[in-house]
Order: sequence, then structure tokens, then C-alpha cells
Amino acid sequence: RYLPFCKLPGRVMGIRLLRFTSVVIIVLLLVAGALTALLPNIKDDKMPNLRREPKPQSQSASDSFTLIMQTYNRTDLLLKLLNHYQAIPQLHKVIVVWNNIGEKIPEEMWNSLGPHPVPVVFKVQTVNRMRNRLQNFPELETKAVLMMDDDTLISAHDLAFAFSVWQQFPEQIVGFVPRKHISTPSGVYSYGSFELQNPGFGNGDQYSMVLIGAAFFHSGYLEDFQRQPEAVYALIDETQNCDDIAMNFLVAKHTGKPSGVFVKPVDIRNLEKDTNSGYSGMWHRAEHLLQRSYCVNKLVNIYDGMPLKYSNIMISQFGFPNYANHKNKM
Amino acid sequence: RYLPFCKLPGRVMGIRLLRFTSVVIIVLLLVAGALTALLPNIKDDKMPNLRREPKPQSQSASDSFTLIMQTYNRTDLLLKLLNHYQAIPQLHKVIVVWNNIGEKIPEEMWNSLGPHPVPVVFKVQTVNRMRNRLQNFPELETKAVLMMDDDTLISAHDLAFAFSVWQQFPEQIVGFVPRKHISTPSGVYSYGSFELQNPGFGNGDQYSMVLIGAAFFHSGYLEDFQRQPEAVYALIDETQNCDDIAMNFLVAKHTGKPSGVFVKPVDIRNLEKDTNSGYSGMWHRAEHLLQRSYCVNKLVNIYDGMPLKYSNIMISQFGFPNYANHKNKM
Repeated sequence: RYLPFCKLPGRVMGIRLLRFTSVVIIVLLLVAGALTALLPNIKDDKMPNLRREPKPQSQSASDSFTLIMQTYNRTDLLLKLLNHYQAIPQLHKVIVVWNNIGEKIPEEMWNSLGPHPVPVVFKVQTVNRMRNRLQNFPELETKAVLMMDDDTLISAHDLAFAFSVWQQFPEQIVGFVPRKHISTPSGVYSYGSFELQNPGFGNGDQYSMVLIGAAFFHSGYLEDFQRQPEAVYALIDETQNCDDIAMNFLVAKHTGKPSGVFVKPVDIRNLEKDTNSGYSGMWHRAEHLLQRSYCVNKLVNIYDGMPLKYSNIMISQFGFPNYANHKNKM
Repeated sequence: RYLPFCKLPGRVMGIRLLRFTSVVIIVLLLVAGALTALLPNIKDDKMPNLRREPKPQSQSASDSFTLIMQTYNRTDLLLKLLNHYQAIPQLHKVIVVWNNIGEKIPEEMWNSLGPHPVPVVFKVQTVNRMRNRLQNFPELETKAVLMMDDDTLISAHDLAFAFSVWQQFPEQIVGFVPRKHISTPSGVYSYGSFELQNPGFGNGDQYSMVLIGAAFFHSGYLEDFQRQPEAVYALIDETQNCDDIAMNFLVAKHTGKPSGVFVKPVDIRNLEKDTNSGYSGMWHRAEHLLQRSYCVNKLVNIYDGMPLKYSNIMISQFGFPNYANHKNKM
């Protein structure tokens, strides 16, 4: 039947209105849904967190460094330190050398607590060896390596400054822990620190090594390390010690200069005491220092000479933390 | 007559004995005389002084430095400082740039108080100019120059250390007084020290100049200085200031690096107050700092750009004076 418009206003209008209203409501819901998706997520820490896709590596390989941290039986410290180190400016990537043989890496937990500022790679090891950290990891893309012990906390300021110093001395180990060897009349060498007699070149003390457990060095040296005499690996494996002394020998031989440049840290802390594992580092072993003297002498045999050279250069950051730390009463 | 031996014992024996005794006595006297000539001369200061001929220069030109000290109206300070500086190890020679126009050099007095450890040359000037000290003196034989103001006393330890640092950075001015320039939004530069705002490259402060009034630098730069645009000499003469800023521009342009390396002095003193002359240095003039900002801007015009670069490297001597000045509570 013909239903003229004027006769069916109520019913026709009703249906059209219904359709119109439905459309409007649906459109509004869609808009609302879109807006919700764009809203910031409010987290417990009250910081606005704009959720975004993890970006590809934005730091260029020449202006950033890779942190290599070996860990054994101190996962609580490792995770505490990773929270700090993952945020250091100019960090490209973290490589965790997992010496906890047979134990699962905390990757699931790590990922569940993401996102993280940089990629962290857990390298599972098959044998618990000190020299595992000195492999030439394929994941390493930067020229610079920062090697840290898993119980050492050093401030971001110190690391940023030391990295800038390394960029001026890229051939050398630039770090925070200086040590030295001394020669004795018998020709036997001894290893130690400030407590040992000065080598006797003028005033003051000298150092001839910078330990790699808190230092920057060129990634090329990891490559070089793979080409050392077998006896070096045997020595490190026998002592589970001295990999750092071996690296200093390698660098000194390569450069003909002092192997390291010492940067005086403003804030460096050893967190050993804070671990729940009850495990304390290798350096507490009674024979630790004697072993290191032993290593120096063995390495001199292996390399047929003493390549280490002395330095007395101590570098600090001008005007930091104290803006006039260089003022003198003139 | 034949005098048998047995018959003349008394007289013959007598003559032979006399001859023999005479010979013995003469020999003894000669020996005694020789011994006397070899004995040390005891002087009033109770130190044995083995008088010897002044030796020719025993320091090689590459392992020693020449002190250049310009002096005006402070001869009492000059002589006090010379007594100290003439004894610095590795010093080859002293060149005193005598800006006391028309006044006799104290050469007679100097010689009468000899011997001196090294030669001291007094270079008489005809005009009292700040830049007189930047001539390429023919007496200069060493690669290294130590330039000191005539009112600055710095310890031998500091100088020995800074010289060893210069040998590691021979292209740069290695010294004890850091300064900086800053850029302002208008493009006009300002000169100053720690009191000026940091240039803003990360934490802490930066320096872009090391003043030559207490520094080591390569003698080649004195040669280079003779080949600068006339406008540079005009500027220094007009202000009687800024020769050191000009040198920093020269070195920065030449190396493309920061012009200086700052070594933190342990003991540096200004002896200005101690002079009898009542003369106090140019830096007390009211316009001194403003002049130096003026010079920075003029030099940027002359050299068509700002070559100065910033550094925040501060070098100290490891383990001196405090044998554990690098210890950290770990």
C-alpha cells in the first residue's frame, strides 16, 4: 500500500530516527574507542608513560659502547646493577655472560619487566670459566666495550666521563682500578697496589695495569685475545684469575705504551656485602694476590719479556662534582 | 886514591844516606803536594764543595727544557725565583726577557754569585712589550719551553711532573692555569674562568685555554708565532695583554684539538705581594678581564672563526703527594 509521507510521520520518523541515532551512537563509540587507545596509561609510579614500539638501535656504533658483565651466583646483584646500567647514556647494548651453569637465565622475568632502554642479551655458558667474558661475542657491534664486575656499582657521571676519556685514548684500557707490578733484585716480579714500594721513577707512585672489571677498552682487543698462546688460556683456567692481567700484557705489547689510563672515580661502590647469595668474590681467596704475582711471572715467561709500562697520570673531571675543584689559593 | 869500601864506611855511607834521604823527602813532598791539590775545599756552609770546571751542557736538548721568564719592575722577585728555578731538574737554560728598558741587567751580580747550575741569558729589550717573550730566541736549544710569569712560584715536583706530561702531549700547552671562553646567543664571546657558566657539554666545567704564564709548550710555536697576521701583534701591543690568548688560538688552529692540557698544581703561589717595587701585575687593571673578552672576539675576526676547543681533562700525579690519593672506599 501506498503510505504517503504525511500519513506515516510517527512510524517512518521513528525508524529513520532510530537508524540515525544508532549510526551516531556507533560512530561515537568508535571515536571513543580510538581515543581510549591513544590515552596515556597511568602507572603506579605516576609518570606518564607513552607506550611506543621498541625502536631499532638509535645509537651509532661509534658513539656508544657495549656493557659486558659476567655473572656467577649473584643474580640479585646482577639485576640491581642492570637496572642502573641499562640507563647509562651512550649505552648500546648489554651482554650478560651467564656463568651459572645449568641454571635458567632470567629472560622471562626480564622481558615481563620491560620495556628496557637497550637490548640485553644473556649468553649461556657451558663451563664456569673466568675468561668466558673475553670471547669475541657476535652481538658486539660497538668499537667500545665497558666491562664491569657483577658487584661493582659506579655512577653514570663517572661512566660518561670515562667514556669520553676512552674516546681520546682508544688504544688503552681506560678505567677506575689501577694496579702495579714491581721488579725485585732477584728478577722476580710482584703484583700489588699502593701498598707496594714505588717503582722509583721520581716522586709518587706509578701504576702499570688498569683492571678490566671496571673499564672501557677497544672491542678489537677481544678479537686479539682469541689469538694468544695456549699457555695464556691454561694459566687463566688454572687460576680462575688473571684474565685482566693477561689483557694488560696484550694491550701493552700491542701499543708499546702503558696499557691503561686511570680515571679517578667519584663514586664507585662494591655491593658484595649486599648479596643474598652469601657468595663473595674470588678476590677473598687467601691465595688471590699471591696468584696474581704468580701470573705476572708466568706471563713474562710466556711473552718472553715484561711489556708492562708505568704511568703516573691520574685523570679527573674538571669542575665536577665541585665546580671549582681546580681552584688554588694563588 | 883508591878508597876501599871497608875503609870509608862512615863518610861514603854518610853521603849516600844523605842523597837517599833527600830523594825520599822530595818524593814525599811531591806526593803531599799532589794530595793537597786533590783535597775538598771546606766552605762556610759546611757542605763539601768539589770545585770543578763549569761543564758544557750535559742535558740533551730532547730531555730538557728552557725557562723563559719575562720581567718588568720586579727584579727582587725575579732573583728570588731564579734561585729556585735554576735548580729544577731537566732545566737546560734560562732566558730572562728584560723589559726594564734602560736599566742595567744584574749580570755582574749574577756572575759574582756563581757558579750557577745552568746558563742564564739576559735578553735586553728596547721597548717594554708584553709580546717580547714570544720571540724565537736564538739561544733556545730545547724542544720544550717552560714559560713562567715573574711573580709565580711553582714547586719543582709540579714542574717535573708537568714536564713529563708535556712529553706525552708535545703538541699542546701543558700548564697550571685553565681558562675558558663562552659563546652567548648574540654570537659575542666572553672570557673567564670557573665563575662563568659552563659551556653545557654534560656535567661539570670545561676549559678552552691554558695560560702560558705557567706552562710548557713546544718551542716550534715561538717560530710559528712570528708568522701570524700583523693584526695579532697590533692587538697585543694595543692591549699589552692577550699574548697568551693569541698563543692558544695559534695552537688550537694548528692541532684541531684543545690547545691545552691542564695539570692541577699541588703548590703554586703568587708572590706579587712580596715585591719591594710596589708594582702589581697587569691583571689588576680594572679593564683586564674585559680586555681579554675583547681580545677573544678580535682574534675570532682575525682568524675568521673560533678555533678554541673545550676539554674537561684534569691531570694529577698518581700517588703524590699523598701515596694513596687514589684510594676509594669500595
